Amino acid sequence: MLHDNFQIDIKNYALFDEAFTHASYVNEHPKENLKYYERIEFLGDAVMQLCVSEYLFKRYPNLPEGKLSRLRAAMVCEDSFSKFAKECHFDEYIRLGKGEEKANARNRPSLLCDIFEAFIGALYLDQGKETVVSFISKVIFPKLDMGWFDHFLDHKTELQELLQQDGDCEIEYQVLAEKGPDNAKQYYVAVLANQKELGRGTGHTKKAAEQAAANQALKELRG
Amino acid sequence: MLHDNFQIDIKNYALFDEAFTHASYVNEHPKENLKYYERIEFLGDAVMQLCVSEYLFKRYPNLPEGKLSRLRAAMVCEDSFSKFAKECHFDEYIRLGKGEEKANARNRPSLLCDIFEAFIGALYLDQGKETVVSFISKVIFPKLDMGWFDHFLDHKTELQELLQQDGDCEIEYQVLAEKGPDNAKQYYVAVLANQKELGRGTGHTKKAAEQAAANQALKELRG
Repeated sequence: MLHDNFQIDIKNYALFDEAFTHASYVNEHPKENLKYYERIEFLGDAVMQLCVSEYLFKRYPNLPEGKLSRLRAAMVCEDSFSKFAKECHFDEYIRLGKGEEKANARNRPSLLCDIFEAFIGALYLDQGKETVVSFISKVIFPKLDMGWFDHFLDHKTELQELLQQDGDCEIEYQVLAEKGPDNAKQYYVAVLANQKELGRGTGHTKKAAEQAAANQALKELRG
Repeated sequence: MLHDNFQIDIKNYALFDEAFTHASYVNEHPKENLKYYERIEFLGDAVMQLCVSEYLFKRYPNLPEGKLSRLRAAMVCEDSFSKFAKECHFDEYIRLGKGEEKANARNRPSLLCDIFEAFIGALYLDQGKETVVSFISKVIFPKLDMGWFDHFLDHKTELQELLQQDGDCEIEYQVLAEKGPDNAKQYYVAVLANQKELGRGTGHTKKAAEQAAANQALKELRG
């Protein structure tokens, strides 16, 4: 059972019934006066936005807003939420109409994402924000440490955005040297903006060295 | 003073300094180690989304998700927030660099909107969600009763979206009758989908009668 898995002492089961019920199921049971998840998902979406924003804001006190936004967008999206829903076995609890069941809606990422948000909405209404934070601290935040979203902290993109915000700027990455044997090669890269060097970086791949150079340039530019 | 106007017992003034400081001011005062509002605005934006969503969710227990989303989008947007910021005289507190001041940034809607969100972020961190809700209950929610956002509860658009979600559908509004003198005319309108009548409505203008007919059709379709 859902509440066993997450040790939640549910007060109002009707909220969770609503969160896990699809419109197709309501249409097939017209006499039962059921509600489907869309309204509660509307609320859950906003709850997630705030909980994730607050966590990132506090965890990364020096991360500029652009990076915070990119990280949040990576975490609060259909791709992530559908995976979390699967991980929590939420797919097993969805009440679907027969047609949607046949169409395999139970495994559709967009529906799994909706159900995840609806569950969060129900949890928020039933238990309050602290319980939501505690739930996503188990399910979502550990993924940050596991590197799920690292590719969204892209220094090269950030440097480009910073340099080009006031107009055109030519950004170039130059390989200064390649050292060591093939299986342990080290690349040395410089980043230049309009021919002026802004930073250098090293790495085992050209791409890693470029990211390191962009990161150093960002630090220099921000003082 | 800000806290006098809204009777807020501020604990951490630094948060509000940050919320009202533009990057251009920070750049002109490099030795003061100041922060500008963007990070705190990132948080405030999410706080507003949740507070408005929760209010609409509870105030309109029968409004479908589509209408809730449209109402929220109308309330949480640059146009609204820049007006609220002006109404609260937040423009007077912004710390701007000289160039931005000359460029009249103080009256730029996008900046006023940002500052409003940043203020909400600071208020949330300093006082918690309840104080934010109490603040926007004075500043924003009364505008709902004043009809600021009524045009977003558009029954005709909603009916169209509902009927056309599974493919094309021809929707037509027919004036059945016009009764009464010119200064108190009453219009009688029917709405038809693929030639089948779905609802009727009356009103003092053709447009109002169409909205009433669409609303009745929505009620019929939803059972």
